[in-house]
Amino acid sequence: MSKIPYRFYLNEDQIPKQWYNVRADMPEQPDPLLNPETGKPLSTQDLYPIFCEELAKQEMDETTRYFDIPDEIQEFYRIFRPSPLIRAYNLEKELGTPAKIYYKFEGNNTSGSHKLNSAVAQAYYAKKQGLTSLTTETGAGQWGTALAMACSYYKLPLTVYMVKVSYEQKPYRKGVMETLGTNIIPSPSNTTNVGRAILESNPDTTGSLGCAISEAVEAAVTTDGCRYVLGSVLNQVLLHQSIIGLETKKAMEILGEYPDIIIGCAGGGSNLGGLISPFMQDKLTGKANPYFIAVEPASCPSLTRGKYAYDFCDTGKVTPLAKMYTLGGDFIPSANHAGGLRYHGMSPILSKLYHDGHLDEARAVEQSSVFEAATIFSRCETILPAPESAHAIRAAIDEALKCKESGEEKTILFGLTGTGYFDMSAYMNFTSGNMSDYVPTDEELQVGFNGLPTVGNS
Amino acid sequence: MSKIPYRFYLNEDQIPKQWYNVRADMPEQPDPLLNPETGKPLSTQDLYPIFCEELAKQEMDETTRYFDIPDEIQEFYRIFRPSPLIRAYNLEKELGTPAKIYYKFEGNNTSGSHKLNSAVAQAYYAKKQGLTSLTTETGAGQWGTALAMACSYYKLPLTVYMVKVSYEQKPYRKGVMETLGTNIIPSPSNTTNVGRAILESNPDTTGSLGCAISEAVEAAVTTDGCRYVLGSVLNQVLLHQSIIGLETKKAMEILGEYPDIIIGCAGGGSNLGGLISPFMQDKLTGKANPYFIAVEPASCPSLTRGKYAYDFCDTGKVTPLAKMYTLGGDFIPSANHAGGLRYHGMSPILSKLYHDGHLDEARAVEQSSVFEAATIFSRCETILPAPESAHAIRAAIDEALKCKESGEEKTILFGLTGTGYFDMSAYMNFTSGNMSDYVPTDEELQVGFNGLPTVGNS
Repeated sequence: MSKIPYRFYLNEDQIPKQWYNVRADMPEQPDPLLNPETGKPLSTQDLYPIFCEELAKQEMDETTRYFDIPDEIQEFYRIFRPSPLIRAYNLEKELGTPAKIYYKFEGNNTSGSHKLNSAVAQAYYAKKQGLTSLTTETGAGQWGTALAMACSYYKLPLTVYMVKVSYEQKPYRKGVMETLGTNIIPSPSNTTNVGRAILESNPDTTGSLGCAISEAVEAAVTTDGCRYVLGSVLNQVLLHQSIIGLETKKAMEILGEYPDIIIGCAGGGSNLGGLISPFMQDKLTGKANPYFIAVEPASCPSLTRGKYAYDFCDTGKVTPLAKMYTLGGDFIPSANHAGGLRYHGMSPILSKLYHDGHLDEARAVEQSSVFEAATIFSRCETILPAPESAHAIRAAIDEALKCKESGEEKTILFGLTGTGYFDMSAYMNFTSGNMSDYVPTDEELQVGFNGLPTVGNS
Repeated sequence: MSKIPYRFYLNEDQIPKQWYNVRADMPEQPDPLLNPETGKPLSTQDLYPIFCEELAKQEMDETTRYFDIPDEIQEFYRIFRPSPLIRAYNLEKELGTPAKIYYKFEGNNTSGSHKLNSAVAQAYYAKKQGLTSLTTETGAGQWGTALAMACSYYKLPLTVYMVKVSYEQKPYRKGVMETLGTNIIPSPSNTTNVGRAILESNPDTTGSLGCAISEAVEAAVTTDGCRYVLGSVLNQVLLHQSIIGLETKKAMEILGEYPDIIIGCAGGGSNLGGLISPFMQDKLTGKANPYFIAVEPASCPSLTRGKYAYDFCDTGKVTPLAKMYTLGGDFIPSANHAGGLRYHGMSPILSKLYHDGHLDEARAVEQSSVFEAATIFSRCETILPAPESAHAIRAAIDEALKCKESGEEKTILFGLTGTGYFDMSAYMNFTSGNMSDYVPTDEELQVGFNGLPTVGNS
């Protein structure tokens, strides 16, 4: 029998009791959020109309290295955590690589993804503050499902604006959320000013995360006792998701391993940021030097082809401005299948880390090569991956094949964020040869860049 | 923190290395399989045209108490086992019961269910014998997916006859199997004599497991190097599935627990038999006296309203005769949603145990109460259960509520066989109030009984 098990679980009492805030170890901070009208940095209090107070504080906190996880959240975590760290023995064998491949699997809960880690926290703080409802958006449906789960647990009413293309491609995602008691609205919708305006100018749009964010924010700020919550991009989300990386690091430590290469898929950055944060700490403090790779879809290439600039977090331009890699809110990504990665921007923290050279590499991959990787993986590892996660699998396979060529026994770690049970129409397109790749032209990207705000970008 | 964790995993080296054959401890054996033409008991060799040899031997073996699990199968098991034993703290709290509720969760693998435990074994033995292809049937799609997974791993071509109602209700199940390289045919089909005959007499049939079995058996025996494999009912399947109960028993032992009540859903009996076998050993040998409950759908009530008689295992009457609780192969269950429990018969081992009073109780439950239980469970436990499994949840909740009334702190264990990600159309029917219950009348059942063979039943 192999010394290192296929699936390694920490004990329940080894689940981290604090989140790690990578900003506390960054040599330079991300640029501050700006008020889009005045161009002035926002205060914590300025965020209170949108976010509940505790989350607003977490959003702005650059110095607290560790945040205690409240007992109630720890209690919820124990329902579905720790998640396993899996040694991909079969994938290694299939590839014939000398590399050791590990993945942290976050898909073993109803939401089917890592999103539950932050959903629990956000619903808990909202409930604690006495709020009476929440709104959010969802792309692939993973975040929406996770938050539906958390809100159902805390008995908090929830409205989800679901990107129209996902709403149509994933009726069963909707079914799960409805089973959990959630109200779902396809976005853009005519329930908000922002949605109506977008529908008027572009009636055939299949929607985007940025647009759904606008609607959810508008609905939150115009409803009493309601706040908006977001499953990615935000600093608070990366904080909560650090539990992925903390568990992984502890597990690898026990196994006597340390990754040479760490790979995550990158949409808004929640999974990538959560996985790499504790390892990034090692890099920033000189303890180790792992190589970080962010993998994004070639159809929505914010890190590899976007601009590092101030931009709205949404399409409707109702949010504060954040400095990040962005394709511009006016960029409407093609209706590709990896819905969770269809976002025009990227977490400001990750953007800054990438800009400053700490996050080593961003890589754009095309959809058909992603599904090829997903298919190989599913046949070896008995897990059907979410298309989003499969971006990371693609890169992990490519790195493992490089090791095969060079003979290097590198240790590769990637984040397997979720399962693909709700993505079967995309898989079926791939299996039947009906999947096409799409890479935006420079001209198409320019449309997005033209719409960048002047405020903050002078 | 609670002393007993939410999720308890054995270590990898604690995964059982032998299967347990409950027949070795039964005071009376199930009646032998009969040749439907001669009425004579079948020999092991008689089964070789249908099953691969090793599996035929396991099928007939009444005396070997433990079977070593081959290293290659142990290796595969380690990809997805051990499965967690979960303490349902949240469900207990929601119900306000003093009972302790445990469930063994088998849904954390691509197939989404416990079926993979036997699929791995059956594909392995087939490959080892040098067979070049396999056929099977699938109802809810769980068995088909599991076998697709195993055959993809062992690179064995597979054809799956999928019950038409599931084929239509679960297109994405089909998608998963196709991603794994499987050939899928909706049953009844015009690819077999049996299928053509059934279609001729009943062109609008939505199919049944029994009918799909007929087609798969016919296809196997008429194809060179091909054999038939089955995911339930058979003795060999209960043997392989004993790993569920063995792991559960070991885990409970470590936690210092022992169940007072053990509950499983019952379609063909694979999950129920696997879960209870090692505990049944305790009962049969006088070591303990847990109370066993088999839960079946009121729409297909083989244990509660069927006859204990010899019957064909399929609708097309091409298989040997088995003595079991049966509704008769001519009974066509309504197109209800819990596809995996739509089978006219019941495992001969379980039938015998029930007939002789060792399996204490069979209980039939109606669909809407099952989905009500599933919804409560999903909101508490962050797992969306398969409708099949939810039958067991229904009974577990009912038993826990009885404890609430009586104040008894019973320990309840049930099998959570799988996830419901592919059953969302049924969930959506329930959520929208469009789910109806169906209980066959005595006259409807009589149709099935009238078709029972005379051979063996004189």
